[in-house]
Amino acid sequence: MKKTRLFTPGPVMIPEDVMLHMAQPMEHHRTSFYRDMLADVTEHLKYMFQTEHADCLVLTGSGTCAGEAAIVSSIHKGMNKALNLSGGKFGERWGKICKAFELDYTDHVMDWGTSATAETVTKLMDADPAIDTVICVHSETSTATLTDIEAIAKVTQARDAVLIVDCITSCGCIPFKFDEWGIDIAFTGSQKAMMLPPGLAFACVSPKAWRRIDKAPCHAFYNDLKAHRKAIRSWDNPYTPANTLVLGLQKVLHGFKERGLENIWKETHMLAEATRSAAKALGLGVYSKSPADSVTAITIPDGIDEGKLRKRMRSEHGMQIAGGQDDLKGKIIRIGHMGYVDASDTLAVIAALELELKLQGHNIELGSGLKAAQEVIFKATQG
Amino acid sequence: MKKTRLFTPGPVMIPEDVMLHMAQPMEHHRTSFYRDMLADVTEHLKYMFQTEHADCLVLTGSGTCAGEAAIVSSIHKGMNKALNLSGGKFGERWGKICKAFELDYTDHVMDWGTSATAETVTKLMDADPAIDTVICVHSETSTATLTDIEAIAKVTQARDAVLIVDCITSCGCIPFKFDEWGIDIAFTGSQKAMMLPPGLAFACVSPKAWRRIDKAPCHAFYNDLKAHRKAIRSWDNPYTPANTLVLGLQKVLHGFKERGLENIWKETHMLAEATRSAAKALGLGVYSKSPADSVTAITIPDGIDEGKLRKRMRSEHGMQIAGGQDDLKGKIIRIGHMGYVDASDTLAVIAALELELKLQGHNIELGSGLKAAQEVIFKATQG
Repeated sequence: MKKTRLFTPGPVMIPEDVMLHMAQPMEHHRTSFYRDMLADVTEHLKYMFQTEHADCLVLTGSGTCAGEAAIVSSIHKGMNKALNLSGGKFGERWGKICKAFELDYTDHVMDWGTSATAETVTKLMDADPAIDTVICVHSETSTATLTDIEAIAKVTQARDAVLIVDCITSCGCIPFKFDEWGIDIAFTGSQKAMMLPPGLAFACVSPKAWRRIDKAPCHAFYNDLKAHRKAIRSWDNPYTPANTLVLGLQKVLHGFKERGLENIWKETHMLAEATRSAAKALGLGVYSKSPADSVTAITIPDGIDEGKLRKRMRSEHGMQIAGGQDDLKGKIIRIGHMGYVDASDTLAVIAALELELKLQGHNIELGSGLKAAQEVIFKATQG
Repeated sequence: MKKTRLFTPGPVMIPEDVMLHMAQPMEHHRTSFYRDMLADVTEHLKYMFQTEHADCLVLTGSGTCAGEAAIVSSIHKGMNKALNLSGGKFGERWGKICKAFELDYTDHVMDWGTSATAETVTKLMDADPAIDTVICVHSETSTATLTDIEAIAKVTQARDAVLIVDCITSCGCIPFKFDEWGIDIAFTGSQKAMMLPPGLAFACVSPKAWRRIDKAPCHAFYNDLKAHRKAIRSWDNPYTPANTLVLGLQKVLHGFKERGLENIWKETHMLAEATRSAAKALGLGVYSKSPADSVTAITIPDGIDEGKLRKRMRSEHGMQIAGGQDDLKGKIIRIGHMGYVDASDTLAVIAALELELKLQGHNIELGSGLKAAQEVIFKATQG
């Protein structure tokens, strides 16, 4: 027997009951059934984003779709200038979107595995007073690196700049507080913490962001957030929504409310901490200088064939883990702690990793990774 | 007992086995499993679009997303001018997209329920030689009206113009021949003929269209078709795809191949013809001057409360039909013939319609609509 276990940092494993819930007979989206569901979902999304006054919007598309919507709706050509903090694959992408739409922006490129600080942002904004928008990735999935959004938001708030946050692999699994931190636009996707299939994306837009958005027309259509705001006022979407995924979303968000966001954050932290401890016990390093709890990037030592390792994790253990991208290809593996994954799954992937490392001749004591993980889990269970 | 039956012209009913097939454990999209599936799906999409040399691309989004992709990728600002043939809600939308992206275009507005002819297009192109792109809706869902794309394509082909066709409620259910007719870009969505939930869209792009697309950069990102072309060369998507829907798509497209497109077209025609005959027998009119077989718009006579009718169709019979949009609100109902709907379902909706009309005092003989429909079905069954 070989179960399929997905440890990629999105798509993630999905609860079986959510999958079957989405398999029920199709309902149309212009019905009271759907409107009631969207109203309920919106209320629960506010809880997930931790906001009271922002609008939570449901888009049909991937996280990139919502990122584009945030950028093209709020950065007006000839009126605004964005500072894009880029320390990985996704930071790069938001800069590419600014470029494609011919927006005024500047990329601040950082070493992969590091994150921007409030001091850096202050310095960069001081040096270029035209900057009135900052784009920042909370948890950079490609490097498993966390940025201190709370600190950066203090800088943007003080200057009345608009802060756009990619919270694709943070919101819903690690601490994320839209209102309290002072974020203006945040966006995420369905296939991460929300443990759904890919196909939905979410944008959270503050009243301050709307004031900016309303200052000029948006030169895009599908991703114009104003169309979404207009529709949501009557619990509708501007274009046909991926409504089976909305069904699943409602079920997942109810589960979030029952479990409590803080408990989810704690559990994700425990899984990440257990994985990092196991990696160290196995003589492996944690890649990021500022590791995020949603996904762990583990450096692969010389002599270990990362491609073979990942391939065998799949063929022999049914486990899908992620490799590195671009320059990190072959150098790291990434294990996700988002979605429908628990301590048992995490121990399972550590166990398989131990076996495969040993098979490739890496000098480890079998069980040492598991022991280190167990210590973390035991401690967390106690309190 | 009250079954849910969806007769809206998208979303449509979905085969139960397809729904359950999509509920299987999640697989990642950067695996040989997904790549093999995407290769197979692409091959089958070519059959659906009836093309040999065009690229078939899978986008995550609604049909509007794919429409925007077709428009912003191929119409370059300052280089091209589009003629948008607008005779309904969707024709209007493609013009709005041109406007949002500040493209050079002109709307040719027609009476709703009518369609453009080759002669009109010839005249309009003669009058404005700058026009090098024509945007046209094959089956205008808002009015259930068909346009003769084959004839219009002859005009655009002769002038080497690019023809963009919205085949959202045509491709896969009524005759549509990309290569033979000479279309350059066509696009559709998953929740129509393909009998899937909403969330995927498809674009079919000819070599001639690619030459146009390659002439200048696209000033959009998520909907830049070039990114999709690059990805599909290695059976990949540029951004995380709605992969559970791709699973369902593969199953549906295999079914299309087994049933044969021509048989599907015949069956859709039979359902439409049966519905139109029933409407006439019940003293109701068919709204469109050029009715499409994918959806039928039936005019509601004075004295019948359309809102109440539609509401009771749902509450008393479990059936969801569509009303009219904008000026047609309250004046027509629309019944779809796409997706997982057969003759029995179609008879069921006619029967419910008869009952509700009679209850509202409309002077009809019960069973007369059914009889008219049966005559059509019987004739079709005989071959």
